[in-house]
Amino acid sequence: MSPPEAPLVDRLPTPCWLVAFTNRRTEAHDEEYDRVAARMVALAREQPGFLGVEAVRDAQGVGITLSYWRDRASISAWKAHLEHGEAQRAGNDRFYARWRLRVCEVVDERGFDAD
Amino acid sequence: MSPPEAPLVDRLPTPCWLVAFTNRRTEAHDEEYDRVAARMVALAREQPGFLGVEAVRDAQGVGITLSYWRDRASISAWKAHLEHGEAQRAGNDRFYARWRLRVCEVVDERGFDAD
Repeated sequence: MSPPEAPLVDRLPTPCWLVAFTNRRTEAHDEEYDRVAARMVALAREQPGFLGVEAVRDAQGVGITLSYWRDRASISAWKAHLEHGEAQRAGNDRFYARWRLRVCEVVDERGFDAD
Repeated sequence: MSPPEAPLVDRLPTPCWLVAFTNRRTEAHDEEYDRVAARMVALAREQPGFLGVEAVRDAQGVGITLSYWRDRASISAWKAHLEHGEAQRAGNDRFYARWRLRVCEVVDERGFDAD
């Protein structure tokens, strides 16, 4: 699932925070997964401190989602969000065979645009 | 391109460091790109402080590569590596339409395995 915005977040205020969610999907529940994933992106956008998201999934079902946040408190609040909690439980129950989540502070950024 | 290891890095010593490289490929030079990308992963594995890599590219040519490092000095040394420098120049010249690179400190990690 790609977010509706351009797939790369253009420029961040640093320091900011990043949550790196790397995962492998189960081979089931595609329709429910797509619906819940899209809903979570839409909901995340409404949260205080949300700065952007980049998400990629390959043909083998391995995905990386990077979400960017103003501070660590915003990440904690999003983790504790009620509807997000339901999605997390569905994730462990049905959507993901494995996942790893890393909470990080972004300290430097560089970029390049060919055009 | 997926790294030869299991696609998720299992467990990291925290604190450690992460480089989040998000990019969009040009629609050209696939063969050269695959060769250079595989060589860079192999070369990165030989560098002091390298801890692991996770890489995903979707069908639209958007990719995210996360590399993990013991400390920031290891990241700086890898950035300055001569052959890596040549690959970086080829990247801007031929491989990438856009990229963003974020240097981050990993402060927390969680995980889940269904089996």
